[in-house]
Amino acid sequence: MRKTTYWLGVDLGGTKMLAALFNEKFKLLAERKEKTSGHDGAKAVVGRLQELITGTVADAGLTARKLAGIGLGVPGPVNVLTGAVLSAPNLGWRNLPLQSILERNCHSPVRVFNDVDAGTYGEFRFGVGEQARCVVGLFPGTGIGGGCIYDGQIFRGREHSCFEVGHMQAVPDGRLCGCGRHGCLEAHASRLAIAADCAAAAYRGQAPTLLELAGTDLREIKSRTLAKSIAAGDRAIEDIVRRAARQLGVAAASIVNLIAPDIIVLGGGLVEALEKLYLEEVRAAVLQHAMPLLGERVKVRAAQLGDHATVLGAAALVAEARGKS
Amino acid sequence: MRKTTYWLGVDLGGTKMLAALFNEKFKLLAERKEKTSGHDGAKAVVGRLQELITGTVADAGLTARKLAGIGLGVPGPVNVLTGAVLSAPNLGWRNLPLQSILERNCHSPVRVFNDVDAGTYGEFRFGVGEQARCVVGLFPGTGIGGGCIYDGQIFRGREHSCFEVGHMQAVPDGRLCGCGRHGCLEAHASRLAIAADCAAAAYRGQAPTLLELAGTDLREIKSRTLAKSIAAGDRAIEDIVRRAARQLGVAAASIVNLIAPDIIVLGGGLVEALEKLYLEEVRAAVLQHAMPLLGERVKVRAAQLGDHATVLGAAALVAEARGKS
Repeated sequence: MRKTTYWLGVDLGGTKMLAALFNEKFKLLAERKEKTSGHDGAKAVVGRLQELITGTVADAGLTARKLAGIGLGVPGPVNVLTGAVLSAPNLGWRNLPLQSILERNCHSPVRVFNDVDAGTYGEFRFGVGEQARCVVGLFPGTGIGGGCIYDGQIFRGREHSCFEVGHMQAVPDGRLCGCGRHGCLEAHASRLAIAADCAAAAYRGQAPTLLELAGTDLREIKSRTLAKSIAAGDRAIEDIVRRAARQLGVAAASIVNLIAPDIIVLGGGLVEALEKLYLEEVRAAVLQHAMPLLGERVKVRAAQLGDHATVLGAAALVAEARGKS
Repeated sequence: MRKTTYWLGVDLGGTKMLAALFNEKFKLLAERKEKTSGHDGAKAVVGRLQELITGTVADAGLTARKLAGIGLGVPGPVNVLTGAVLSAPNLGWRNLPLQSILERNCHSPVRVFNDVDAGTYGEFRFGVGEQARCVVGLFPGTGIGGGCIYDGQIFRGREHSCFEVGHMQAVPDGRLCGCGRHGCLEAHASRLAIAADCAAAAYRGQAPTLLELAGTDLREIKSRTLAKSIAAGDRAIEDIVRRAARQLGVAAASIVNLIAPDIIVLGGGLVEALEKLYLEEVRAAVLQHAMPLLGERVKVRAAQLGDHATVLGAAALVAEARGKS
């Protein structure tokens, strides 16, 4: 009987971390979730991460040493050659040699990727983008993440992951962005920017359902709350979400004009909660703003793997790096 | 004695065509120039193109049959697999199977590329972008052309050349573009857009030197005229050119955020005539609008090969395609 090969994928997010164990056919064998609590510092987070890995593997009766490889998706740019996290603002990390730390402690090969790159790769391999030559993933959340798979590999520019879609300029001299500049796409079209506009609409009495469900605190305005308030007839909220989707669509059209992808995959909680409306606006903006030849041909699709895109992608990427994909 | 291998590169522009003969070390052996006169129709242009090729080769005592390959750069998107020109508005071409027509008539292997891709490849191989992994070429002219060399190859998206930088959105609801939409980068920052603004300034009496040198006819306002008028103290003209360069720089910053190139090469007549001023503005805009990590590292350089970039690039690309680069 042939021995099973085990791969572990981890999605290390700003608020929670998810680990998932797969066999060589990328069938899910076990998974565990844990809070990240990044404010405890890098050492504490890495400790919890190791416990999470050990626990997930133990659920399947294994130890970490038995893994053929561990792939991680982290929220920030990564040096793909060394596996160092260059910066992860949500975790308070800068230049953390995550790959070498984990390899030392887990006694398994480790590879570190940007989480959106890993998620886009997951969709490319197992979800909506299968078989395509050039796949762009756009994930509007607190920020707006982007990833690109070109010719079966993460597009990586000079030396590290890139595709910082959220910081393309959307509005000259526009709203203040988290990066300190003005008018970036994510300052206008992220879930956070939408929540800010919706809170103001609620405050002004333009969104009675939202006001009842969430008040005017941005922290309470989640994607599902937006969906409920739109379903209940809060026209201002629908207007705000459609406008943001259109702005992301204009940026998507510029990306189409630049790199002519086969497919654009839209993912994340906002897209999941408001798929029909969101895709409608992005498709219309791409048709309107991309070159006809390119805009008509590109597919615009919702992601299919949900929370599993990044763990699947990270596991498949480490398998590929180990020559066993 | 080893037999010499001969490659021919052709830059087929809207107004003139340039053919250049190279040996296997890409040393220039002969070159000829001819007017394109695209309004005569595709058949006449292809006929002139063949005469140009025959003549250039004859200058070195050869016939076209002796060529190891002919590489062409054409002003429009190309299907890189078939060598068909999908569209070349300046020539009035649509879906012209240029590669097969020329192969039949010249009895030599032919490859067809987008002219900006070929020019960027030329700079990558022989000019300013040597040794870099990811090179972006930006060529502001009547429109604004772009090209990208990634991992030693033309970045080509789905199936054909892309990098339509000129049609990235620069100004929401902005000026009318040649493509029929509004606010595209080239509607605001091309040499043509600059000429239009400068003509208006001349008309208003804000640019006495330009008015004297060129009047208010856009056709007379060339890159060198702009340079002369700025040198003579036409402040309004300097202001207009700087603003356009800055707008191109903002788009360049978005490209940097997306694909993190090693180097951005700026070329074309406008950049040649006003290099210092133009590069100053683009560099400043990239530093201001790109992510710090990416913006600080990318090099912004002027092209070095001038009119020879495209013929050199096309010749080297056909050599590469024939496995003899």
